[in-house]
Amino acid sequence: MKTKPLINRLAIIGVGLIGGSLARILRDQGEVGEIVGIGRGEANLRKAVELGVVDRYSLDPVAGVAGADLVFLATPVCSIPAITAEIAPHLAAGCVVTDGGSVKEEIVSACEPLMPPGVHFVGGHPIAGTEHSGVEASFASLYAGKRCIVTPTSRTCPDALAKVVRMWEVAGSEVVVMGTEKHDRVVAAISHLPHMVAYSLVNAVGGYDRFDENIIRYSAGGFRDFTRIASSDPAMWRDIALMNREAVIEMMDHFAKYFASLRELVAEADGPALERFFRESKESRDSIL
Amino acid sequence: MKTKPLINRLAIIGVGLIGGSLARILRDQGEVGEIVGIGRGEANLRKAVELGVVDRYSLDPVAGVAGADLVFLATPVCSIPAITAEIAPHLAAGCVVTDGGSVKEEIVSACEPLMPPGVHFVGGHPIAGTEHSGVEASFASLYAGKRCIVTPTSRTCPDALAKVVRMWEVAGSEVVVMGTEKHDRVVAAISHLPHMVAYSLVNAVGGYDRFDENIIRYSAGGFRDFTRIASSDPAMWRDIALMNREAVIEMMDHFAKYFASLRELVAEADGPALERFFRESKESRDSIL
Repeated sequence: MKTKPLINRLAIIGVGLIGGSLARILRDQGEVGEIVGIGRGEANLRKAVELGVVDRYSLDPVAGVAGADLVFLATPVCSIPAITAEIAPHLAAGCVVTDGGSVKEEIVSACEPLMPPGVHFVGGHPIAGTEHSGVEASFASLYAGKRCIVTPTSRTCPDALAKVVRMWEVAGSEVVVMGTEKHDRVVAAISHLPHMVAYSLVNAVGGYDRFDENIIRYSAGGFRDFTRIASSDPAMWRDIALMNREAVIEMMDHFAKYFASLRELVAEADGPALERFFRESKESRDSIL
Repeated sequence: MKTKPLINRLAIIGVGLIGGSLARILRDQGEVGEIVGIGRGEANLRKAVELGVVDRYSLDPVAGVAGADLVFLATPVCSIPAITAEIAPHLAAGCVVTDGGSVKEEIVSACEPLMPPGVHFVGGHPIAGTEHSGVEASFASLYAGKRCIVTPTSRTCPDALAKVVRMWEVAGSEVVVMGTEKHDRVVAAISHLPHMVAYSLVNAVGGYDRFDENIIRYSAGGFRDFTRIASSDPAMWRDIALMNREAVIEMMDHFAKYFASLRELVAEADGPALERFFRESKESRDSIL
Protein backbone atom coordinates (compact mmCIF):
# COMPACT_ATOMS: atom_id res chain seq x y z
CA MET A 1 0.00 0.00 0.00
CA LYS A 2 1.19 3.44 -0.91
CA THR A 3 1.92 5.54 2.15
CA LYS A 4 3.13 8.84 0.73
CA PRO A 5 1.53 10.68 -2.17
CA LEU A 6 3.64 12.77 -4.54
CA ILE A 7 2.02 15.94 -3.21
CA ASN A 8 0.79 16.45 0.37
CA ARG A 9 -1.04 19.72 -0.05
CA LEU A 10 -1.72 21.01 -3.55
CA ALA A 11 -2.83 24.61 -3.98
CA ILE A 12 -4.45 25.33 -7.34
CA ILE A 13 -4.82 28.98 -8.26
CA GLY A 14 -7.49 29.17 -10.94
CA VAL A 15 -9.82 26.16 -10.71
CA GLY A 16 -11.10 25.92 -14.27
CA LEU A 17 -10.62 23.45 -17.08
CA ILE A 18 -6.83 23.28 -16.67
CA GLY A 19 -6.54 23.45 -12.88
CA GLY A 20 -9.62 21.34 -12.22
CA SER A 21 -8.55 18.58 -14.60
CA LEU A 22 -5.12 18.34 -12.95
CA ALA A 23 -6.78 18.15 -9.49
CA ARG A 24 -9.08 15.36 -10.67
CA ILE A 25 -6.40 13.14 -12.15
CA LEU A 26 -3.95 13.57 -9.24
CA ARG A 27 -6.68 12.62 -6.79
CA ASP A 28 -7.80 9.68 -8.95
CA GLN A 29 -4.20 8.46 -8.96
CA GLY A 30 -3.87 8.81 -5.18
CA GLU A 31 -0.96 11.19 -5.59
CA VAL A 32 -2.28 14.12 -3.57
CA GLY A 33 -3.27 14.51 0.09
CA GLU A 34 -5.31 17.69 0.24
CA ILE A 35 -6.32 20.08 -2.56
CA VAL A 36 -6.99 23.76 -1.90
CA GLY A 37 -8.70 25.76 -4.61
CA ILE A 38 -7.92 29.46 -4.93
CA GLY A 39 -9.66 31.99 -7.12
CA ARG A 40 -11.76 35.12 -7.33
CA GLY A 41 -15.08 33.61 -8.29
CA GLU A 42 -16.67 32.12 -5.19
CA ALA A 43 -19.48 30.40 -7.08
CA ASN A 44 -16.97 28.49 -9.21
CA LEU A 45 -14.94 27.51 -6.13
CA ARG A 46 -18.08 26.32 -4.31
CA LYS A 47 -18.92 24.24 -7.36
CA ALA A 48 -15.37 22.81 -7.29
CA VAL A 49 -15.91 21.66 -3.68
CA GLU A 50 -19.35 20.24 -4.53
CA LEU A 51 -17.85 18.29 -7.43
CA GLY A 52 -15.10 16.96 -5.16
CA VAL A 53 -12.44 18.57 -7.34
CA VAL A 54 -10.96 20.46 -4.38
CA ASP A 55 -11.32 19.81 -0.63
CA ARG A 56 -11.66 23.45 0.38
CA TYR A 57 -11.18 26.87 -1.12
CA SER A 58 -9.86 30.33 -0.37
CA LEU A 59 -10.47 33.66 -2.04
CA ASP A 60 -7.16 34.86 -0.63
CA PRO A 61 -4.10 33.48 -2.45
CA VAL A 62 -1.81 34.12 0.53
CA ALA A 63 -4.03 32.18 2.92
CA GLY A 64 -4.73 29.52 0.32
CA VAL A 65 -1.10 28.55 -0.33
CA ALA A 66 -0.23 28.19 3.37
CA GLY A 67 1.50 24.89 3.98
CA ALA A 68 1.28 23.79 0.32
CA ASP A 69 4.18 21.75 -1.03
CA LEU A 70 3.03 22.32 -4.60
CA VAL A 71 1.32 25.37 -6.05
CA PHE A 72 -0.12 25.22 -9.57
CA LEU A 73 -0.94 28.50 -11.27
CA ALA A 74 -3.67 28.04 -13.86
CA THR A 75 -4.80 31.62 -14.34
CA PRO A 76 -4.56 33.76 -17.54
CA VAL A 77 -0.92 34.17 -18.61
CA CYS A 78 -0.71 37.89 -17.86
CA SER A 79 -1.76 37.44 -14.25
CA ILE A 80 0.81 34.77 -13.34
CA PRO A 81 3.77 37.04 -12.45
CA ALA A 82 1.66 39.31 -10.22
CA ILE A 83 0.03 36.42 -8.36
CA THR A 84 3.42 34.78 -7.93
CA ALA A 85 4.81 38.01 -6.48
CA GLU A 86 1.91 38.16 -4.05
CA ILE A 87 2.23 34.60 -2.73
CA ALA A 88 6.02 34.19 -2.88
CA PRO A 89 6.90 35.56 0.59
CA HIS A 90 4.33 33.26 2.18
CA LEU A 91 5.37 29.94 0.67
CA ALA A 92 6.59 27.12 2.89
CA ALA A 93 10.22 26.01 2.55
CA GLY A 94 10.48 23.16 0.06
CA CYS A 95 7.41 24.30 -1.87
CA VAL A 96 7.49 23.94 -5.64
CA VAL A 97 5.58 26.48 -7.73
CA THR A 98 4.64 25.67 -11.31
CA ASP A 99 2.21 27.00 -13.88
CA GLY A 100 0.30 26.06 -17.00
CA GLY A 101 0.80 29.24 -19.02
CA SER A 102 1.29 29.00 -22.77
CA VAL A 103 4.17 31.51 -22.75
CA LYS A 104 7.29 30.64 -20.80
CA GLU A 105 10.20 33.07 -21.21
CA GLU A 106 8.42 36.09 -19.73
CA ILE A 107 6.72 34.09 -16.97
CA VAL A 108 9.79 32.14 -15.90
CA SER A 109 12.14 35.13 -16.00
CA ALA A 110 9.65 37.10 -13.90
CA CYS A 111 8.73 34.38 -11.40
CA GLU A 112 11.98 32.52 -10.77
CA PRO A 113 13.76 35.44 -9.05
CA LEU A 114 10.73 35.98 -6.78
CA MET A 115 11.17 32.68 -4.98
CA PRO A 116 12.40 32.83 -1.38
CA PRO A 117 15.24 30.47 -0.34
CA GLY A 118 14.23 26.84 -0.50
CA VAL A 119 11.27 27.49 -2.78
CA HIS A 120 11.47 26.77 -6.51
CA PHE A 121 9.63 27.87 -9.62
CA VAL A 122 9.45 25.49 -12.59
CA GLY A 123 7.63 26.62 -15.73
CA GLY A 124 5.24 24.19 -17.40
CA HIS A 125 2.80 24.11 -20.28
CA PRO A 126 0.40 21.23 -20.82
CA ILE A 127 -0.60 21.24 -24.49
CA ALA A 128 -4.20 20.27 -23.91
CA GLY A 129 -7.55 21.98 -23.77
CA THR A 130 -11.06 22.04 -25.09
CA GLU A 131 -13.26 24.91 -26.21
CA HIS A 132 -15.00 24.84 -22.82
CA SER A 133 -13.94 26.53 -19.59
CA GLY A 134 -14.74 26.49 -15.89
CA VAL A 135 -14.45 23.70 -13.32
CA GLU A 136 -17.54 21.96 -14.66
CA ALA A 137 -15.72 21.44 -17.96
CA SER A 138 -12.76 19.74 -16.21
CA PHE A 139 -12.18 16.00 -16.47
CA ALA A 140 -9.50 13.59 -15.28
CA SER A 141 -8.35 12.41 -18.70
CA LEU A 142 -7.71 15.86 -20.23
CA TYR A 143 -3.94 15.33 -20.18
CA ALA A 144 -3.85 11.64 -21.11
CA GLY A 145 -1.55 11.12 -24.08
CA LYS A 146 -0.99 14.86 -24.51
CA ARG A 147 2.39 16.57 -24.47
CA CYS A 148 3.42 18.70 -21.54
CA ILE A 149 6.44 20.95 -21.97
CA VAL A 150 8.46 21.70 -18.82
CA THR A 151 11.01 24.52 -19.03
CA PRO A 152 13.76 24.45 -16.40
CA THR A 153 16.55 27.03 -16.39
CA SER A 154 20.19 26.70 -15.37
CA ARG A 155 19.06 27.68 -11.87
CA THR A 156 16.29 25.09 -11.53
CA CYS A 157 16.63 22.69 -8.58
CA PRO A 158 16.74 19.11 -9.92
CA ASP A 159 14.36 17.81 -7.23
CA ALA A 160 11.80 20.50 -8.01
CA LEU A 161 12.05 19.70 -11.73
CA ALA A 162 11.65 15.98 -11.02
CA LYS A 163 8.52 16.62 -8.94
CA VAL A 164 6.86 18.67 -11.69
CA VAL A 165 7.82 16.14 -14.37
CA ARG A 166 6.46 13.30 -12.23
CA MET A 167 3.23 15.21 -11.62
CA TRP A 168 2.55 15.51 -15.35
CA GLU A 169 3.50 11.88 -15.93
CA VAL A 170 0.98 10.89 -13.27
CA ALA A 171 -1.56 13.00 -15.19
CA GLY A 172 -0.84 10.84 -18.24
CA SER A 173 1.17 13.35 -20.25
CA GLU A 174 4.23 12.80 -22.38
CA VAL A 175 6.64 15.24 -20.75
CA VAL A 176 9.15 17.08 -22.93
CA VAL A 177 11.84 19.22 -21.30
CA MET A 178 13.20 22.23 -23.21
CA GLY A 179 14.36 25.79 -22.63
CA THR A 180 11.95 28.70 -22.42
CA GLU A 181 13.19 30.23 -25.67
CA LYS A 182 12.61 27.06 -27.66
CA HIS A 183 9.24 26.53 -26.00
CA ASP A 184 8.07 29.98 -26.95
CA ARG A 185 9.06 29.45 -30.59
CA VAL A 186 7.47 26.01 -30.76
CA VAL A 187 4.12 27.29 -29.48
CA ALA A 188 4.42 30.46 -31.55
CA ALA A 189 4.72 28.21 -34.61
CA ILE A 190 2.13 25.55 -33.89
CA SER A 191 -0.44 27.63 -32.02
CA HIS A 192 0.08 31.39 -31.94
CA LEU A 193 0.89 31.78 -35.65
CA PRO A 194 -2.17 29.79 -36.79
CA HIS A 195 -4.33 32.06 -34.63
CA MET A 196 -2.77 35.21 -36.12
CA VAL A 197 -3.33 33.76 -39.60
CA ALA A 198 -6.94 32.79 -38.91
CA TYR A 199 -7.85 36.14 -37.34
CA SER A 200 -6.25 37.95 -40.31
CA LEU A 201 -7.96 35.72 -42.86
CA VAL A 202 -11.43 36.33 -41.44
CA ASN A 203 -10.84 40.08 -41.28
CA ALA A 204 -9.46 40.10 -44.82
CA VAL A 205 -12.43 38.24 -46.27
CA GLY A 206 -14.91 40.21 -44.14
CA GLY A 207 -13.21 43.47 -45.19
CA TYR A 208 -13.21 42.78 -48.93
CA ASP A 209 -15.46 45.44 -50.42
CA ARG A 210 -15.30 45.20 -54.21
CA PHE A 211 -18.87 43.93 -54.40
CA ASP A 212 -22.08 45.25 -52.94
CA GLU A 213 -22.33 42.58 -50.26
CA ASN A 214 -20.07 40.94 -47.70
CA ILE A 215 -18.70 37.92 -49.54
CA ILE A 216 -18.05 36.08 -46.28
CA ARG A 217 -21.71 35.08 -46.45
CA TYR A 218 -20.80 32.60 -49.19
CA SER A 219 -18.47 30.69 -46.89
CA ALA A 220 -19.18 26.99 -46.65
CA GLY A 221 -18.11 24.26 -44.25
CA GLY A 222 -14.46 24.33 -45.29
CA PHE A 223 -14.02 28.01 -44.49
CA ARG A 224 -15.90 27.66 -41.23
CA ASP A 225 -13.73 24.74 -40.12
CA PHE A 226 -10.55 26.50 -41.14
CA THR A 227 -11.41 29.67 -39.25
CA ARG A 228 -12.83 28.03 -36.13
CA ILE A 229 -9.87 29.27 -34.04
CA ALA A 230 -10.75 32.87 -34.99
CA SER A 231 -13.68 32.46 -32.61
CA SER A 232 -11.22 32.20 -29.69
CA ASP A 233 -11.31 34.70 -26.83
CA PRO A 234 -9.93 38.08 -28.06
CA ALA A 235 -8.66 39.18 -24.62
CA MET A 236 -6.77 35.93 -24.08
CA TRP A 237 -5.13 36.18 -27.49
CA ARG A 238 -4.27 39.84 -26.95
CA ASP A 239 -2.40 38.73 -23.80
CA ILE A 240 -0.65 35.84 -25.53
CA ALA A 241 0.42 38.02 -28.47
CA LEU A 242 1.80 40.61 -26.06
CA MET A 243 3.58 38.14 -23.76
CA ASN A 244 5.12 36.11 -26.58
CA ARG A 245 5.61 39.11 -28.81
CA GLU A 246 9.15 38.44 -29.96
CA ALA A 247 8.51 34.83 -30.96
CA VAL A 248 5.14 35.66 -32.52
CA ILE A 249 6.73 38.34 -34.71
CA GLU A 250 9.56 36.00 -35.66
CA MET A 251 7.05 33.36 -36.75
CA MET A 252 4.78 35.84 -38.55
CA ASP A 253 7.77 37.10 -40.55
CA HIS A 254 8.86 33.53 -41.24
CA PHE A 255 5.37 32.63 -42.52
CA ALA A 256 5.14 35.83 -44.57
CA LYS A 257 8.27 34.79 -46.50
CA TYR A 258 6.77 31.45 -47.46
CA PHE A 259 3.45 33.07 -48.36
CA ALA A 260 5.21 35.67 -50.51
CA SER A 261 7.18 32.97 -52.31
CA LEU A 262 3.97 31.07 -53.06
CA ARG A 263 2.43 34.31 -54.35
CA GLU A 264 5.33 34.63 -56.78
CA LEU A 265 4.86 31.06 -58.01
CA VAL A 266 1.19 31.81 -58.71
CA ALA A 267 2.06 35.12 -60.40
CA GLU A 268 4.65 33.39 -62.60
CA ALA A 269 2.17 30.58 -63.35
CA ASP A 270 4.94 28.13 -62.51
CA GLY A 271 2.91 24.90 -62.49
CA PRO A 272 5.68 22.44 -61.58
CA ALA A 273 6.94 24.64 -58.72
CA LEU A 274 3.39 25.15 -57.44
CA GLU A 275 2.77 21.42 -57.41
CA ARG A 276 6.08 20.89 -55.57
CA PHE A 277 5.17 23.54 -52.99
CA PHE A 278 1.76 21.95 -52.38
CA ARG A 279 3.16 18.42 -52.37
CA GLU A 280 5.89 19.25 -49.86
CA SER A 281 3.25 20.80 -47.63
CA LYS A 282 0.91 17.83 -47.97
CA GLU A 283 3.69 15.39 -47.12
CA SER A 284 4.73 17.42 -44.10
CA ARG A 285 1.15 17.71 -42.91
CA ASP A 286 0.35 14.04 -43.52
CA SER A 287 3.41 13.14 -41.41
CA ILE A 288 1.76 14.60 -38.31
CA LEU A 289 -1.59 12.87 -38.76
CA MET B 1 -48.72 11.95 -62.69
CA LYS B 2 -45.63 13.62 -64.06
CA THR B 3 -45.17 12.93 -67.73
CA LYS B 4 -42.06 14.85 -68.65
CA PRO B 5 -38.84 14.95 -66.65
CA LEU B 6 -36.66 18.09 -66.61
CA ILE B 7 -33.97 16.23 -68.55
CA ASN B 8 -34.58 13.49 -71.12
CA ARG B 9 -31.04 12.28 -71.64
CA LEU B 10 -28.36 13.45 -69.21
CA ALA B 11 -24.71 12.90 -70.16
CA ILE B 12 -22.31 13.15 -67.24
CA ILE B 13 -18.66 13.48 -68.11
CA GLY B 14 -16.67 12.43 -65.05
CA VAL B 15 -18.76 10.11 -62.89
CA GLY B 16 -17.21 10.68 -59.46
CA LEU B 17 -18.40 12.29 -56.26
CA ILE B 18 -19.75 15.40 -58.00
CA GLY B 19 -21.17 13.85 -61.17
CA GLY B 20 -22.42 10.71 -59.44
CA SER B 21 -24.21 12.60 -56.69
CA LEU B 22 -26.03 14.79 -59.23
CA ALA B 23 -27.09 11.69 -61.19
CA ARG B 24 -28.43 10.05 -58.03
CA ILE B 25 -30.56 12.97 -56.87
CA LEU B 26 -32.00 13.73 -60.33
CA ARG B 27 -33.04 10.11 -60.71
CA ASP B 28 -34.46 10.00 -57.16
CA GLN B 29 -36.51 13.07 -57.99
CA GLY B 30 -37.78 11.58 -61.23
CA GLU B 31 -36.36 14.46 -63.22
CA VAL B 32 -34.23 12.53 -65.69
CA GLY B 33 -35.04 9.95 -68.36
CA GLU B 34 -31.75 8.29 -69.17
CA ILE B 35 -28.29 8.88 -67.73
CA VAL B 36 -25.14 8.21 -69.74
CA GLY B 37 -21.81 8.14 -67.90
CA ILE B 38 -18.68 9.22 -69.74
CA GLY B 39 -15.11 8.89 -68.54
CA ARG B 40 -11.70 7.36 -69.03
CA GLY B 41 -11.73 4.78 -66.25
CA GLU B 42 -13.83 1.83 -67.34
CA ALA B 43 -13.79 0.17 -63.90
CA ASN B 44 -15.33 3.27 -62.34
CA LEU B 45 -17.95 3.51 -65.08
CA ARG B 46 -18.87 -0.19 -64.70
CA LYS B 47 -19.24 0.41 -60.98
CA ALA B 48 -21.50 3.38 -61.75
CA VAL B 49 -23.78 1.12 -63.81
CA GLU B 50 -23.74 -1.57 -61.11
CA LEU B 51 -24.72 1.01 -58.50
CA GLY B 52 -27.54 2.26 -60.72
CA VAL B 53 -26.00 5.73 -60.84
CA VAL B 54 -25.93 5.71 -64.66
CA ASP B 55 -27.87 3.58 -67.13
CA ARG B 56 -25.01 3.01 -69.53
CA TYR B 57 -21.56 4.37 -70.20
CA SER B 58 -19.19 5.39 -72.95
CA LEU B 59 -15.43 5.85 -73.01
CA ASP B 60 -15.87 8.15 -75.99
CA PRO B 61 -17.20 11.62 -75.11
CA VAL B 62 -18.46 12.24 -78.64
CA ALA B 63 -20.48 9.02 -78.73
CA GLY B 64 -21.61 9.49 -75.14
CA VAL B 65 -23.19 12.91 -75.59
CA ALA B 66 -25.20 11.87 -78.67
CA GLY B 67 -28.83 12.89 -78.24
CA ALA B 68 -28.30 14.38 -74.78
CA ASP B 69 -30.36 17.44 -73.87
CA LEU B 70 -28.12 18.19 -70.89
CA VAL B 71 -24.39 17.58 -70.56
CA PHE B 72 -22.75 17.99 -67.16
CA LEU B 73 -18.96 18.29 -67.07
CA ALA B 74 -17.58 17.12 -63.73
CA THR B 75 -13.93 16.59 -64.63
CA PRO B 76 -10.88 18.47 -63.25
CA VAL B 77 -11.10 22.20 -64.04
CA CYS B 78 -8.19 22.27 -66.48
CA SER B 79 -9.73 19.58 -68.69
CA ILE B 80 -13.14 21.21 -69.13
CA PRO B 81 -12.34 23.53 -72.09
CA ALA B 82 -10.64 20.76 -74.09
CA ILE B 83 -13.45 18.25 -73.53
CA THR B 84 -16.00 20.91 -74.40
CA ALA B 85 -14.14 21.64 -77.65
CA GLU B 86 -14.16 17.93 -78.47
CA ILE B 87 -17.89 17.37 -77.94
CA ALA B 88 -19.24 20.74 -79.11
CA PRO B 89 -19.65 19.93 -82.83
CA HIS B 90 -21.57 16.77 -81.96
CA LEU B 91 -24.18 18.20 -79.60
CA ALA B 92 -27.86 18.01 -80.46
CA ALA B 93 -29.72 21.26 -81.11
CA GLY B 94 -31.31 22.53 -77.89
CA CYS B 95 -28.70 20.85 -75.72
CA VAL B 96 -27.53 22.70 -72.61
CA VAL B 97 -23.95 22.18 -71.43
CA THR B 98 -22.98 23.04 -67.87
CA ASP B 99 -20.12 22.22 -65.55
CA GLY B 100 -19.18 21.97 -61.87
CA GLY B 101 -15.74 23.56 -62.01
CA SER B 102 -14.58 25.79 -59.15
CA VAL B 103 -13.21 28.46 -61.52
CA LYS B 104 -15.62 30.18 -63.87
CA GLU B 105 -14.14 33.10 -65.84
CA GLU B 106 -11.59 31.01 -67.73
CA ILE B 107 -13.95 28.09 -68.28
CA VAL B 108 -16.94 30.16 -69.41
CA SER B 109 -14.93 32.43 -71.67
CA ALA B 110 -13.35 29.37 -73.31
CA CYS B 111 -16.47 27.20 -73.58
CA GLU B 112 -19.25 29.63 -74.43
CA PRO B 113 -17.87 30.54 -77.92
CA LEU B 114 -17.45 26.84 -78.76
CA MET B 115 -21.17 26.14 -78.76
CA PRO B 116 -22.82 25.51 -82.14
CA PRO B 117 -26.07 27.34 -82.97
CA GLY B 118 -28.91 26.31 -80.68
CA VAL B 119 -26.62 24.84 -78.04
CA HIS B 120 -25.82 26.77 -74.86
CA PHE B 121 -23.12 26.71 -72.23
CA VAL B 122 -23.98 27.83 -68.68
CA GLY B 123 -21.24 27.82 -66.04
CA GLY B 124 -22.03 26.38 -62.62
CA HIS B 125 -20.29 25.60 -59.37
CA PRO B 126 -21.93 23.56 -56.62
CA ILE B 127 -20.19 24.44 -53.35
CA ALA B 128 -20.27 20.97 -51.93
CA GLY B 129 -17.90 18.08 -51.54
CA THR B 130 -16.33 15.64 -49.16
CA GLU B 131 -12.76 14.43 -48.76
CA HIS B 132 -13.68 11.28 -50.71
CA SER B 133 -13.78 10.78 -54.46
CA GLY B 134 -15.05 8.31 -57.04
CA VAL B 135 -18.57 7.14 -57.83
CA GLU B 136 -18.72 4.97 -54.71
CA ALA B 137 -18.38 8.13 -52.59
CA SER B 138 -21.37 9.77 -54.31
CA PHE B 139 -24.71 10.17 -52.54
CA ALA B 140 -28.04 11.77 -53.39
CA SER B 141 -28.06 14.36 -50.59
CA LEU B 142 -24.60 15.85 -51.31
CA TYR B 143 -26.15 19.08 -52.59
CA ALA B 144 -29.02 19.39 -50.13
CA GLY B 145 -28.95 22.78 -48.44
CA LYS B 146 -25.66 23.73 -50.13
CA ARG B 147 -25.12 26.76 -52.31
CA CYS B 148 -24.71 26.40 -56.05
CA ILE B 149 -23.42 29.39 -57.98
CA VAL B 150 -24.55 29.69 -61.59
CA THR B 151 -22.72 32.21 -63.78
CA PRO B 152 -24.59 33.35 -66.90
CA THR B 153 -23.12 35.97 -69.23
CA SER B 154 -24.82 38.63 -71.30
CA ARG B 155 -25.03 36.03 -74.09
CA THR B 156 -26.65 33.28 -72.04
CA CYS B 157 -30.00 32.02 -73.33
CA PRO B 158 -32.64 32.53 -70.59
CA ASP B 159 -34.19 29.09 -71.14
CA ALA B 160 -30.82 27.39 -70.80
CA LEU B 161 -30.11 29.33 -67.60
CA ALA B 162 -33.54 28.40 -66.23
CA LYS B 163 -32.93 24.72 -66.94
CA VAL B 164 -29.60 24.70 -65.12
CA VAL B 165 -31.01 26.65 -62.16
CA ARG B 166 -33.96 24.28 -61.97
CA MET B 167 -31.63 21.26 -62.07
CA TRP B 168 -29.71 22.47 -59.01
CA GLU B 169 -32.91 23.36 -57.21
CA VAL B 170 -34.13 19.82 -57.81
CA ALA B 171 -30.83 18.66 -56.32
CA GLY B 172 -31.72 20.60 -53.16
CA SER B 173 -29.28 23.48 -53.59
CA GLU B 174 -29.78 27.13 -52.87
CA VAL B 175 -28.94 28.62 -56.28
CA VAL B 176 -27.18 31.97 -56.44
CA VAL B 177 -26.70 33.68 -59.79
CA MET B 178 -23.70 35.99 -60.27
CA GLY B 179 -21.13 36.96 -62.88
CA THR B 180 -17.99 34.92 -63.48
CA GLU B 181 -15.71 37.66 -62.17
CA LYS B 182 -17.53 37.89 -58.85
CA HIS B 183 -17.72 34.11 -58.59
CA ASP B 184 -13.99 33.77 -59.03
CA ARG B 185 -13.30 36.33 -56.30
CA VAL B 186 -15.80 34.80 -53.90
CA VAL B 187 -14.26 31.34 -54.19
CA ALA B 188 -10.73 32.79 -54.21
CA ALA B 189 -11.59 34.36 -50.84
CA ILE B 190 -13.49 31.57 -49.13
CA SER B 191 -11.67 28.57 -50.58
CA HIS B 192 -8.56 29.24 -52.65
CA LEU B 193 -6.98 31.75 -50.25
CA PRO B 194 -7.43 29.48 -47.20
CA HIS B 195 -5.69 26.71 -49.13
CA MET B 196 -2.78 28.99 -50.07
CA VAL B 197 -2.52 30.06 -46.43
CA ALA B 198 -2.64 26.50 -45.09
CA TYR B 199 -0.06 25.18 -47.56
CA SER B 200 2.24 28.12 -46.71
CA LEU B 201 1.76 27.68 -42.98
CA VAL B 202 2.71 24.02 -43.02
CA ASN B 203 5.77 24.69 -45.17
CA ALA B 204 6.80 27.61 -42.93
CA VAL B 205 6.57 25.56 -39.74
CA GLY B 206 8.15 22.52 -41.37
CA GLY B 207 10.94 24.71 -42.76
CA TYR B 208 11.80 26.45 -39.49
CA ASP B 209 15.34 25.37 -38.71
CA ARG B 210 16.57 27.30 -35.68
CA PHE B 211 16.53 24.18 -33.53
CA ASP B 212 18.01 20.76 -34.03
CA GLU B 213 14.70 19.09 -34.78
CA ASN B 214 11.63 19.73 -36.90
CA ILE B 215 9.31 21.60 -34.55
CA ILE B 216 6.24 20.49 -36.49
CA ARG B 217 6.47 17.30 -34.44
CA TYR B 218 5.10 19.23 -31.46
CA SER B 219 1.88 20.06 -33.27
CA ALA B 220 -1.27 19.08 -31.42
CA GLY B 221 -4.89 18.69 -32.44
CA GLY B 222 -5.45 22.39 -33.08
CA PHE B 223 -2.66 22.63 -35.64
CA ARG B 224 -3.73 19.41 -37.30
CA ASP B 225 -7.33 20.59 -37.62
CA PHE B 226 -6.25 23.99 -38.92
CA THR B 227 -3.97 22.52 -41.58
CA ARG B 228 -6.25 19.69 -42.72
CA ILE B 229 -6.81 21.39 -46.08
CA ALA B 230 -3.03 21.32 -46.72
CA SER B 231 -3.51 17.58 -47.26
CA SER B 232 -5.56 18.31 -50.39
CA ASP B 233 -4.47 17.05 -53.78
CA PRO B 234 -1.41 19.06 -54.99
CA ALA B 235 -2.14 18.61 -58.70
CA MET B 236 -5.74 19.79 -58.31
CA TRP B 237 -4.64 22.87 -56.40
CA ARG B 238 -1.91 23.63 -58.92
CA ASP B 239 -4.62 23.68 -61.59
CA ILE B 240 -6.97 25.85 -59.53
CA ALA B 241 -4.20 28.33 -58.68
CA LEU B 242 -3.28 28.56 -62.35
CA MET B 243 -6.83 28.86 -63.67
CA ASN B 244 -7.94 31.41 -61.10
CA ARG B 245 -4.56 33.12 -60.96
CA GLU B 246 -5.69 36.73 -61.13
CA ALA B 247 -8.29 36.40 -58.36
CA VAL B 248 -6.01 34.25 -56.21
CA ILE B 249 -3.24 36.85 -56.38
CA GLU B 250 -5.72 39.63 -55.63
CA MET B 251 -6.90 37.78 -52.53
CA MET B 252 -3.38 36.81 -51.41
CA ASP B 253 -2.34 40.47 -51.61
CA HIS B 254 -5.50 41.51 -49.79
CA PHE B 255 -4.82 39.00 -47.00
CA ALA B 256 -1.13 40.00 -46.79
CA LYS B 257 -2.18 43.57 -46.02
CA TYR B 258 -4.32 42.50 -43.07
CA PHE B 259 -1.62 40.12 -41.85
CA ALA B 260 1.03 42.87 -42.07
CA SER B 261 -1.19 45.27 -40.15
CA LEU B 262 -1.67 42.69 -37.40
CA ARG B 263 2.10 42.17 -37.33
CA GLU B 264 2.53 45.89 -36.71
CA LEU B 265 0.03 45.84 -33.85
CA VAL B 266 1.98 43.00 -32.21
CA ALA B 267 5.30 44.79 -32.79
CA GLU B 268 3.92 47.98 -31.27
CA ALA B 269 2.44 45.98 -28.36
CA ASP B 270 -0.83 47.84 -28.94
CA GLY B 271 -3.07 45.84 -26.63
CA PRO B 272 -6.37 47.67 -27.26
CA ALA B 273 -5.92 47.55 -31.04
CA LEU B 274 -4.97 43.86 -30.91
CA GLU B 275 -8.08 43.04 -28.92
CA ARG B 276 -10.18 45.05 -31.41
CA PHE B 277 -8.63 43.20 -34.34
CA PHE B 278 -9.31 39.81 -32.72
CA ARG B 279 -12.81 40.80 -31.59
CA GLU B 280 -13.81 42.04 -35.02
CA SER B 281 -12.60 38.77 -36.50
CA LYS B 282 -14.40 36.69 -33.90
CA GLU B 283 -17.67 38.57 -34.50
CA SER B 284 -17.35 38.18 -38.25
CA ARG B 285 -16.55 34.49 -37.91
CA ASP B 286 -19.30 33.83 -35.36
CA SER B 287 -21.77 35.45 -37.79
CA ILE B 288 -21.26 32.64 -40.29
CA LEU B 289 -21.68 29.81 -37.80
